Amino acid sequence: MEREHFSKLYDEELNDIREKLLEMGGKVELMISNSMKALVERNSELADRTIASDPGINQMEMEIDEKCIQVLARRQPAGRDLRFLTLALKIVTDLERIGDQCVNIANRAKELNEEPILKPYIDLPRMANWTSVMVKEALDAFVRGDEKLAMKVCKDDQFVDDLNVQIQRELLTFMMEDPGTITRSLRLNYISKYLERIADHATNVAEMVIFMVKGKDIRHTIPSTSDEK
Amino acid sequence: MEREHFSKLYDEELNDIREKLLEMGGKVELMISNSMKALVERNSELADRTIASDPGINQMEMEIDEKCIQVLARRQPAGRDLRFLTLALKIVTDLERIGDQCVNIANRAKELNEEPILKPYIDLPRMANWTSVMVKEALDAFVRGDEKLAMKVCKDDQFVDDLNVQIQRELLTFMMEDPGTITRSLRLNYISKYLERIADHATNVAEMVIFMVKGKDIRHTIPSTSDEK
Repeated sequence: MEREHFSKLYDEELNDIREKLLEMGGKVELMISNSMKALVERNSELADRTIASDPGINQMEMEIDEKCIQVLARRQPAGRDLRFLTLALKIVTDLERIGDQCVNIANRAKELNEEPILKPYIDLPRMANWTSVMVKEALDAFVRGDEKLAMKVCKDDQFVDDLNVQIQRELLTFMMEDPGTITRSLRLNYISKYLERIADHATNVAEMVIFMVKGKDIRHTIPSTSDEK
Repeated sequence: MEREHFSKLYDEELNDIREKLLEMGGKVELMISNSMKALVERNSELADRTIASDPGINQMEMEIDEKCIQVLARRQPAGRDLRFLTLALKIVTDLERIGDQCVNIANRAKELNEEPILKPYIDLPRMANWTSVMVKEALDAFVRGDEKLAMKVCKDDQFVDDLNVQIQRELLTFMMEDPGTITRSLRLNYISKYLERIADHATNVAEMVIFMVKGKDIRHTIPSTSDEK
């Protein structure tokens, strides 16, 4: 009976970590869409709010870390649970750094909102939407142990990389033709790279999930597409 | 007697992880200096060798991860050892990503080596040297549990950030004055950002070390300087 009680509590602790991670993921997804909205709708107040939400993400990182360490200490898990916890420790860092990238996007958006618009934003919101889905699916794959979904995320990264290259090429022609556009082009360039990096974080998470599920490390076996220009 | 044997083996396992991390750190430092040398000495063959050394880094990441998980499973550590192992799991990811940044630098160096030199490289090698020292000191701080050294690394990050801003400003004037320099300036710009990101990884490691030593999380309490333009 006591054993059952112990095991029920333990399950609750693992579930709690799972839920906290999903909650953190939801907040990070919101940061991605809000930072992009701040750019597209030229809404600097929304950019400020996005920036202001980052400390909450940092706080969650520390809390989840602490929870994982506590469970490791008290429950001394093995096998699958141990892999889940060690992965959670890594994933939470990726999530936190995605938050940092959103802050970067919001800062560039604020600067761009002060100047005349260079061109209508079409590819960047597409890219943001795509990366946000990747983050969501990578986390879903983690909590459900869904290897197939994790594989999909890894594949989707290529599309984001391609979009990034295309955006950078287009911005280069702007800069070449009119040096007056260089500052704005550079800022848009940065935003494209921040998004590309968010997609890389999601891909890292997905690769680790595949490792957890298969017990086989596919990190660094998929031909790398991450040389970022 | 048996207990003593157990504890000796356990210490050896922790030492092994410590040594492997230092070895990986040494390899990553070499990647930083070689990728920069490839640029400064216009040595694309060295750039290729730097790129070719990355899979070895990735392999080390997976090996150290596995060792940590095995020790967690077999020894069920608590307290300081547990924190050491959970930190090692995080730090190894930072080291691996520093390796990725060096690959990026080497790729940009190869492209730049195909074109006439834009200007003598002075600040970038300084920045590379500085970041390499930060990586070394962050790792030393980790294996020695040296809080003071970790604090120093966090402070040094500001200098790298300042150098990055200065380099970007200078490159901007090149681009404005002569659109023919845009492609090369952008590449140098990227290298500066890759270095700045390496310094951020070192700072992340140092912050986690302070956490390990003090049991107090200073992550996200030092005013962030990491908005990267």
